[in-house]
Amino acid sequence: MQNAITVPADLLHRQLTTVFTAWGMAEEHADTAATIMVETDLSGVDSHGIGMLPHYQKLLREGRLDPRATPIILRDNGVAVLVDGQKAIGHVPAHFATELAIEKAREHGIGVAAVTNSNHYGAAGWYARMAAEEGMICISLTNSSHLLVPVNGTEPALGTNPIAFSAPTRDPERPVLLDMATTTVAYGKVSIARRAGKPLPPGWAINEEGGPELDSARASDARRLAPLGGTREQGAHKGYGLALMVEILCATLTGAGSGQLRTGHFFLVLNPAAFRDREGFQADLEDLLARLRGNAPADPASPVIIPGDPEHDTTVERQRDGIPMVQTLVEEVRAVCEESGAAFILRS
Amino acid sequence: MQNAITVPADLLHRQLTTVFTAWGMAEEHADTAATIMVETDLSGVDSHGIGMLPHYQKLLREGRLDPRATPIILRDNGVAVLVDGQKAIGHVPAHFATELAIEKAREHGIGVAAVTNSNHYGAAGWYARMAAEEGMICISLTNSSHLLVPVNGTEPALGTNPIAFSAPTRDPERPVLLDMATTTVAYGKVSIARRAGKPLPPGWAINEEGGPELDSARASDARRLAPLGGTREQGAHKGYGLALMVEILCATLTGAGSGQLRTGHFFLVLNPAAFRDREGFQADLEDLLARLRGNAPADPASPVIIPGDPEHDTTVERQRDGIPMVQTLVEEVRAVCEESGAAFILRS
Repeated sequence: MQNAITVPADLLHRQLTTVFTAWGMAEEHADTAATIMVETDLSGVDSHGIGMLPHYQKLLREGRLDPRATPIILRDNGVAVLVDGQKAIGHVPAHFATELAIEKAREHGIGVAAVTNSNHYGAAGWYARMAAEEGMICISLTNSSHLLVPVNGTEPALGTNPIAFSAPTRDPERPVLLDMATTTVAYGKVSIARRAGKPLPPGWAINEEGGPELDSARASDARRLAPLGGTREQGAHKGYGLALMVEILCATLTGAGSGQLRTGHFFLVLNPAAFRDREGFQADLEDLLARLRGNAPADPASPVIIPGDPEHDTTVERQRDGIPMVQTLVEEVRAVCEESGAAFILRS
Repeated sequence: MQNAITVPADLLHRQLTTVFTAWGMAEEHADTAATIMVETDLSGVDSHGIGMLPHYQKLLREGRLDPRATPIILRDNGVAVLVDGQKAIGHVPAHFATELAIEKAREHGIGVAAVTNSNHYGAAGWYARMAAEEGMICISLTNSSHLLVPVNGTEPALGTNPIAFSAPTRDPERPVLLDMATTTVAYGKVSIARRAGKPLPPGWAINEEGGPELDSARASDARRLAPLGGTREQGAHKGYGLALMVEILCATLTGAGSGQLRTGHFFLVLNPAAFRDREGFQADLEDLLARLRGNAPADPASPVIIPGDPEHDTTVERQRDGIPMVQTLVEEVRAVCEESGAAFILRS
């Protein structure tokens, strides 16, 4: 690993709000985005926390991100709502929309909030977790920049279009929490292989002829990822189909559009109590999870886990020890601060 | 291919209703189930049409399927509804629930219908297509008998738990229609490899140590399938996570339960017109699909397709030429007729 420092969560939060308010974001919005990013870093999803800050700065510089924007409700049918993100940083409209969907689910049993005209919203799973903390089941989706090459094709045509799903367990700190790209791997894993000078397994990236790209340097430059499944024989048409589903719900249904840097989100929130008594739901869910954890493991040192377990463990660890940041990232944050006229406070 | 006959769709429909009414099913229910099964066979999903009849007969014999049952509404919150399938053949409560969800989506923009106490409902995609024909977007899910081995585990603990998704295009005959197991392959593909005496690729089945099972005969007996992705490196934790999502929505949220032959379903229906003007939605969807179809293909003879294309093409072909049935299946249907006291009319 590169030379790294560890940063306490509250310091990282302060650094982020310092930058965001320097950009002109309202304090409340700065706090929302910073909280989401820091909690994402705490959970170990390093690719979607402060690591995205240089990208957001670039969007700001190019006029694609409006720091002063406040999301508005475009349509509200009682249960379904469409939010216009007004080109804010995606976290702000996504947080607003998830709150609305939770409210609606509390009242009607379900709520759907779709968001148009937004930007990158960080980790899809954060919003699902937010709903789970309120006792709700949630699906959180976003489209994203084109990296996925459809089966039979050669050109990136869809994003890594993640699917996040949460369900509340009796422990509010520990929901079932799936957060997955619909590509075999997120782009970050290709970069990691490149830095390590390692080849890629087949099924991760696609070469210009549509076959497997095993050279991590070439794959990293070309930015062509395989859908989950990797190859047709291994079910890549399923990953492609799931990515298309996410695109239709986030880009087409919302009107956000399907081009590069056109971003929409989709949140479905379900109140289990609308379907059955909550106690029965919780008991059955605990039984299901216990049965899965009890599955005889191939290797006793690696038991069957539940989606969300690794992120929960990392959160506990990083709340105690701080968030590791490689030196390169620290310098990138310093550069963002300089460009923004914000104080750099991560280290003196 | 085995000795096969081709059967016109209407003859197959009559054969099925003859059996179902002999079982004691109401005419309307017999017609619903037969229609769904025949249309599934027409679309080429042979594993989920009349091929399931011997299994349904077995459920009937064991008292797990009540042919006289009529599904009832257990809870109705206006937008979310819970249906009790009363142990009917799954098609009947699933069709009833999808109709309810479509009605609710027409009124409120969205509708969710969950079903408990049901049975195998055939192809998940059929219900999604039904909603698409009404201009709706739909997600159709069901849990199913345990075949999927969770990552790190050795024992089947979840079903192949399919995810179907549909979106209506301008051509009502041709919705976007994804219908996928959350395992790398459905069990039928393992059986086909066994009959052909071929080994399996890694990533399809799991051996008793939790590693890849390449012997198709052993895999077919052991009934341990790998989650979509196949191996951890190729993203099998994602297929496992998706299967768990389906299990929670179909088995836990509904109260159907998660054991063998405990079956529930989940249908989400969205009216695009609740989010934006329908014309804008349709135009953007056509653009997206055209862009995907226009992706430069690796092999010009195999262009990029849209989920649902192969099923659409097969339907056109089989509506014209009839539905192929291998001799073994014809004999199985004959045996079902004998056991049920129903006339066998497929061939004299």
